[in-house]
Amino acid sequence: MTLDEKVAQIITLWATKRDIMDELAFNPAKARAAYPHGFGQVGRPSDRRGATPAGIGPAGGTGARWRSPKDTVDFVNAVQRHAVTETRLGIPVLFHEEALHGYMATDATMFPQAIALASSFDTGLMRDVSSVIAREVRSRGVHLALSPVVDIVRDPRWGRIEETFGEDPYLVAEMGVAAVEGLQGKGETLAPDKVFATLKHMTGHGQPESGVNVAPAQLSERDLRENFFPPFEQIVRRTSVAAVMPSYNEIDGVPSHANKWLITDVLRGEWGFKGAVVSDYFAIDELSTLHHVEPDIPAAAIRALQAGVDSDLPDGVAFRTLADSVRAGKVSEAMIDAAVRRMLTLKFRAGLFERPYADFARSDAITGNAEARALALKAAHRSMVLLKNDGVLPLAAGAHKRVAVIGPNAAITRLGGYSSFPRQSVTLLDAIKAKLAGKAEVLHAQGVFITQSEDRSADEVLLADPIKNRQLIAEAVAVAKTAEIVILAIGDTEQTSREAFARNHLGDRTSLDLVGEQNELASALFALGKPVVVVAVNGRPPSWPIVAERANALLEAWYPGQEGGTAMADILFGHVNPGGKLPVSVPRHAGQIPIFYNAKPSARRGYLFDTTDPLFPFGHGLSYTRFELSAPRLSATRMGRDDSVTVSVEVRNAGDRAGDEVVQLYVRDRIASITRPLKELKGFERVTLKPGERRTVRFTLGPDAFHMWDSSMKRVVEPGDFDIMAGPNSVDLKTTTLTITA
Amino acid sequence: MTLDEKVAQIITLWATKRDIMDELAFNPAKARAAYPHGFGQVGRPSDRRGATPAGIGPAGGTGARWRSPKDTVDFVNAVQRHAVTETRLGIPVLFHEEALHGYMATDATMFPQAIALASSFDTGLMRDVSSVIAREVRSRGVHLALSPVVDIVRDPRWGRIEETFGEDPYLVAEMGVAAVEGLQGKGETLAPDKVFATLKHMTGHGQPESGVNVAPAQLSERDLRENFFPPFEQIVRRTSVAAVMPSYNEIDGVPSHANKWLITDVLRGEWGFKGAVVSDYFAIDELSTLHHVEPDIPAAAIRALQAGVDSDLPDGVAFRTLADSVRAGKVSEAMIDAAVRRMLTLKFRAGLFERPYADFARSDAITGNAEARALALKAAHRSMVLLKNDGVLPLAAGAHKRVAVIGPNAAITRLGGYSSFPRQSVTLLDAIKAKLAGKAEVLHAQGVFITQSEDRSADEVLLADPIKNRQLIAEAVAVAKTAEIVILAIGDTEQTSREAFARNHLGDRTSLDLVGEQNELASALFALGKPVVVVAVNGRPPSWPIVAERANALLEAWYPGQEGGTAMADILFGHVNPGGKLPVSVPRHAGQIPIFYNAKPSARRGYLFDTTDPLFPFGHGLSYTRFELSAPRLSATRMGRDDSVTVSVEVRNAGDRAGDEVVQLYVRDRIASITRPLKELKGFERVTLKPGERRTVRFTLGPDAFHMWDSSMKRVVEPGDFDIMAGPNSVDLKTTTLTITA
Repeated sequence: MTLDEKVAQIITLWATKRDIMDELAFNPAKARAAYPHGFGQVGRPSDRRGATPAGIGPAGGTGARWRSPKDTVDFVNAVQRHAVTETRLGIPVLFHEEALHGYMATDATMFPQAIALASSFDTGLMRDVSSVIAREVRSRGVHLALSPVVDIVRDPRWGRIEETFGEDPYLVAEMGVAAVEGLQGKGETLAPDKVFATLKHMTGHGQPESGVNVAPAQLSERDLRENFFPPFEQIVRRTSVAAVMPSYNEIDGVPSHANKWLITDVLRGEWGFKGAVVSDYFAIDELSTLHHVEPDIPAAAIRALQAGVDSDLPDGVAFRTLADSVRAGKVSEAMIDAAVRRMLTLKFRAGLFERPYADFARSDAITGNAEARALALKAAHRSMVLLKNDGVLPLAAGAHKRVAVIGPNAAITRLGGYSSFPRQSVTLLDAIKAKLAGKAEVLHAQGVFITQSEDRSADEVLLADPIKNRQLIAEAVAVAKTAEIVILAIGDTEQTSREAFARNHLGDRTSLDLVGEQNELASALFALGKPVVVVAVNGRPPSWPIVAERANALLEAWYPGQEGGTAMADILFGHVNPGGKLPVSVPRHAGQIPIFYNAKPSARRGYLFDTTDPLFPFGHGLSYTRFELSAPRLSATRMGRDDSVTVSVEVRNAGDRAGDEVVQLYVRDRIASITRPLKELKGFERVTLKPGERRTVRFTLGPDAFHMWDSSMKRVVEPGDFDIMAGPNSVDLKTTTLTITA
Repeated sequence: MTLDEKVAQIITLWATKRDIMDELAFNPAKARAAYPHGFGQVGRPSDRRGATPAGIGPAGGTGARWRSPKDTVDFVNAVQRHAVTETRLGIPVLFHEEALHGYMATDATMFPQAIALASSFDTGLMRDVSSVIAREVRSRGVHLALSPVVDIVRDPRWGRIEETFGEDPYLVAEMGVAAVEGLQGKGETLAPDKVFATLKHMTGHGQPESGVNVAPAQLSERDLRENFFPPFEQIVRRTSVAAVMPSYNEIDGVPSHANKWLITDVLRGEWGFKGAVVSDYFAIDELSTLHHVEPDIPAAAIRALQAGVDSDLPDGVAFRTLADSVRAGKVSEAMIDAAVRRMLTLKFRAGLFERPYADFARSDAITGNAEARALALKAAHRSMVLLKNDGVLPLAAGAHKRVAVIGPNAAITRLGGYSSFPRQSVTLLDAIKAKLAGKAEVLHAQGVFITQSEDRSADEVLLADPIKNRQLIAEAVAVAKTAEIVILAIGDTEQTSREAFARNHLGDRTSLDLVGEQNELASALFALGKPVVVVAVNGRPPSWPIVAERANALLEAWYPGQEGGTAMADILFGHVNPGGKLPVSVPRHAGQIPIFYNAKPSARRGYLFDTTDPLFPFGHGLSYTRFELSAPRLSATRMGRDDSVTVSVEVRNAGDRAGDEVVQLYVRDRIASITRPLKELKGFERVTLKPGERRTVRFTLGPDAFHMWDSSMKRVVEPGDFDIMAGPNSVDLKTTTLTITA
C-alpha cells in the first residue's frame, strides 16, 4: 500500500458529501476524482442532508432527513462496488451508523431509550434488543454501530443523560456487556446478522462541568478507576468489542482524543483492547478549534494519531493531512501503519472481503417485523418504573366510565434522541382508547404544548406561548371535570432533553423541573380532587417535586419506544405488572447535584432548610404486588481475599398478583486505607414470581466485588469486614457482615 | 525529654476542659493530676463553654459564651505559670485562637468578613487589618491564630464561602500573603505584637461535593496545582508562615490529615515549608470516625503523624495515644521527635521562653481602640461593592425629606461567622439617622424577620413565621408609602450563612436566593414605584435575580464589621465613593454551579432556556465616577520564556468625583499542550484618582504569570502567543498579544 492508500483507510466520508454524489446517488467518477486513493469508511449511509453541524447528534426533522431504506442499500452497494472493483487495492468500505436504541434510519424498530432499557435491570432483554438492532443495521450493509453509550452519568442537567445506562458502574457495565454481545455476538468474527459495537464516550462525558455538554470532566485517577472506567474495562475484558470512541471532553486538562495515557496505556495496555479507536465527530479538529492544545488541524491529527486514535469521523478532514505530515517527517509512517492495520482487521473480522454487498429485499423483510415489534413492546413493559402509587393503580378497565387522557405527551409518540421513523408507533391515547373500547368513554385534551414546534430539527427551540397554554389548561380542566379519573402524560420532548451540539441547539438545562406550564397544568388537575395518574414520558429523570407530592400515582415510562403507548396502557390497566427500577438517583432540584447513591461517608451531611435525600433513590421501583426479601445469607462469613462467597437472598411474592422484583446486592468495605463508598451495587437479578411463590436468588461475590485501588493505585482486596446488603432498592437494605482475612 | 513529655508537646487542650479547671479558673493541682507530663498547647483561652460540638466553628450565642478579657489573660498567665514553674521541663504553653476577621473574643475589633476584605482588592489594607488583629490576639498571651483561610471557593452553596478570599488563585494568594505578613511580620521570629498565622484548609475545602461542608473534593492533580495549591504555595514561599492546617475533606479518596503526599511531599518537600502542621478540630479522630480509613483513634493518630501532622487540635484525644503506640512498636519515636521539634521551634520563634506572660492592662488599652475602630471603618469603606446603580446613588443628604430604612438587616449589626462581641458597633439605621439628623426624617420598619431567633448558638435554625412576616411586610409597605425613597437592607444572618458542623447546625444551602420572605418584601417595595436602594448584608454572594433586576441600586456590603453601619451610610450618601470588586462570580441560581470565571474553553457552551453568564461577573464593581482604561501596552511584544515584560495600563478618571478603580490584568495562553483557561488574573492594582486625573499602572509579568503544568506535571512556560488583557472587571477587557519565544 502506498502512504496515500494507507491514509485513505483511516479517513471517513460522511455519506452526504457532495463530492461523491449526484443528489442521493453515489457517483463513482466524482469519487475517483476527489479520492483517487480511495476511502476506508463511510458514515451514516441512511443520511440525506449535508454534513452541517445541525446534522450531528439527535435525530430530528421530518422524513426528508433520511434516505429511504432502498436508497440506503443502493448507496452502500454502489460505494462497495466502486471500492472493490474500481480502486487499485479493491478494499471494501466500512460503513457506520447510529444505533443507540434502534437503528437511526427509516423503518427501523425504535426501542425504549437507553436509560429506559437500563431501568429494566434485565441484561437478557438488553441482549435481545441489541440483537434485533444488529440485524436491522447489518441488513443494510452497515458494519459498525456507534453504540452503546457506557458513560457514568452524574449530572441530570446534561441533556444526554437519556442516552446512558445511569449512574452506577456495575449496572452500566452489565448492561454494556449485554449490549455488545447482542450487537456483535460473542466471537471475534462477525456473523452476517451482527454489527460491531462502539463503546462511547471514553470518558467523563457524563459528569461535565456545570452540566454543560462537552465541558471538562474534573476527575482524578482513582475516581476514573472506581467509577468511570469499569464499564469500559469490563466490556473490553469480557467481549470482543470492536471499537472505542474517546470523549469530546477534557479530563484534567487533556482532551480525550489527545489522551495517550487513556487510549494507549490504559485501554490498550492495561485492558488489552485489540480493536479500533474511532474519533467522535469532528473531535480531532476540536483539539485545535475548541481545546486549543494544537495550533492547527494537521497538528491535531498528529496528536490524535499519537494518542492512539485510528480513524477520523465523520469526514476525515484532520487525518487526510497525515500523508503530508509523514512526508514532512512530522510523524512516523509506522504509526499510520498501526492504525491502518486495526481498521483493516475490522474489515477482515466483519467478513467484508467475502460479503461486501447488502440485499434490500432481505433487509426490508426483517426490518421492523412482527418479532421486532413484539420485542419493542416487551422492552417497554420491562423498562417502566412505578415511582409512586397510593393504590389507584392498576386501573380496572370499565371501572371508570369517563377517563380523561390529558397532556402534551398523550397523543404523540416521543422516541427520544437518536431516533428516526419506525414503521409504526402507538400513542398512549390510542392505546387507552383501544383498551377501553366499549367499556368507557375516553376524553382527551392537549393541556399544554411544551414547545412552539414539534419539528425536532428546528433551528431554535422556543417555549410554547404561556397565554395559549393557559387557555389549553382551562380547556383540559373542563374536560377533566367531566371525567372520573385523569391520566396525565407529561415530560420532555426531543427538543428539551437532547444532546447539545451548537449554540442554537442546546439541550442542557439549569432547572430539572417540568418545562413550560406543565406544573400549572398538573396543579390545576390535582386541584379538582379527582384521582390523577401521571405518566412521565421523558429523557431527563423526573425531578418534579410538585407532581411527586400530589399525583396519586407516577409511572416513569421514559421514552418508551415505538410500542410505548401500548405498554403504558398495559401497565396502567394492570395487564402487565411494572417491575423496572431507577438506574439513577433523582434529585429534587439542581441544588442537590451531584446526588449519586454510591457516595463517600463524608458526603451528604445535610443542608439548611433542605435535605440531601433524593426525590427517588437509585434502584427504586414499585410493583402491584408486594415482595418480602430476606437478609442476605452467606456461604461463609469468613474467607480469604482470593476466595468467593455465595450470597443467597430469599424473595417471596407476598401479594396476590404475579410480578417482578429486582433483588439488588450492595457491598460496603467498612474500613479501608482509602475512603470507600457507603454502598456499591455488586449484583442484581430480576425475578418473576407468582403470588405466594418464593425463590432463592444466588450471587457469587469474588475479588472483583471487594477490590479497591490503594494509595499506590494498585488493585487490592484489603482484609477486614464488609457489609453485604440486599434489598429491593438502594435504601431499604438488610445487612450481613463478611470478614475477609489476610 | 521522656517519650511522655514529648507526646505532651504535640497535644492540645481546649481551654474549657473540666479536668484542668475550677469554673473559669485554671487549677494547677487538677492539671498536674490529669496531665503529669504537661501539655504543649491550649486552644481558645477566651472560650468559656465546654468542648461540645456546638462550641466549634462560627461564634454564636451571647456573651456568656466567652471568658472576659481579664479572665482570659488571668487564665493564660496561670497556665503559663504552671507550665514554666511546675512542670519538669518548664516549657511554656502555646495558645491558639480564632482570628478570621478579628480576634474572636470579647471586646476585640471586628473587621469586615474575609470575603469582604478580599473585595477591597487592597493588599495594604489586608496587611493593616491583620496587624491590628495580631496585636489584639497577642496582647492576651496568644501566639497562634487559626487564620487566614486561603481556600479557593467554587461552590456558593457551601456556607463557609464568606470565610474565603474568593475563587481566584492569584487574588487569594496575594490577600493571603498580606494577611500572613500582617499577622506575623516578615521575619522568622515573632515581634511582641505579632502572632503566628495558620494557612487553612489544605485543601479542596472550597469545592465540596454537592456544596456540603467537609464532603469530598473531587480534584485531580493538575487542578490542585493550577487552582487550589497556588495560595498555599505562594504564602509558604514568600513568607515565614508558621502553621498549615490540613482540610477535613478527602481528595480522591485520601482525607487530607492522612495525605502524606500533600503534607510531606508537596508542602514540605516541594515548597520547603518549615513550620508546623496542626490538625483541624477533631480531624484526626475523623480519619476513623468519619472517613473510616483507620479502625480506631490510635491508628488514626499514627496515620496522621506519618502523613506529617504535628499537633492534634483541639483536645489531643488522638495524639495522646501515640506514647503507647511507640511503646508497642507501632510507630517510631523519631516521628514523634520531628513533630515535637517543629512545635518547640514555634515556641522559640515566638520568644515564649523569654516572655510567656500577658499584661491585661496593656491588652485592654490596645483592644478595640480608636485606631482599630478607624481601621475597621476604612476596611468597610474599601470592601463594599456597588453592583448596580441606575443613578439613584449617591443620595444627597436632605434631598429626600422622608427616608424609609427597611429590612431585617437594617437595625442590627451582623458580623458573620467567627465573630464575637466588639466594644462597639453601628447599625445601618443608626448611621443613617446620624447622617440625616436635622435634614430628613428617617422611618424604619422591620419588613421581615429572617429566622425565628437571633441567638446564633440556638440548637436549631428555624425560619421566621411567614404569616407574621407578611404582616410585617404590610407594615413596611405602609411606612414606605409615606417616604420618598426606600433603603432596604436584606441578606443573611450568621445562622443562614455559616459553617455547618453538625446535624442541627447546618449552613449549606441548595437555594442561593434570599431566605424566607425577603423577596416578597423586596417585591412589595419595588411595586410602590419609589426608588429602592438595596443594601446586601450577607456572607453568601447575592444570587438574587429578582432584586438584581428590580432594585434601582444594589450595594454589596457583605458582613461589614463593627463599623459597617457607618460605612454603608457613608457610601449611600456619597461621602465615600465605593471601589470594591467581586472576588467571586455570582451565579443566578444553583443550577449554574460551578461558574468560576477562569474556565476552560470547552466549558460554558450554553443552556437551553437559560444562560451560562453569571448574574455578576468576577471583578465587577461600579463607582460614582467613570474610569477610562487603555489597552495594555507591553515593554516588549516578544520575549524569551525566562524574561519578564512590563505591562502598562493608563487609567483616567473621566467623571467629576474622586474615586477608586481596580485595574485588573488577565492572561491567556492561546495554544498550549494542555488546555488553558480563557483568562486568569495575574495582576491588580487599586488606584484612587481625582476627577480628570490619569495614572499609568504598571505590572511586571514574569514566568510565574505564564507557566503551566505540562503532561508530565512539570512547571513550564511554553512558547507561543499570550493574550494580555486589562480592564475594570473580568469581562470588559482590552487585549494585546505577547509572543514568548523558545
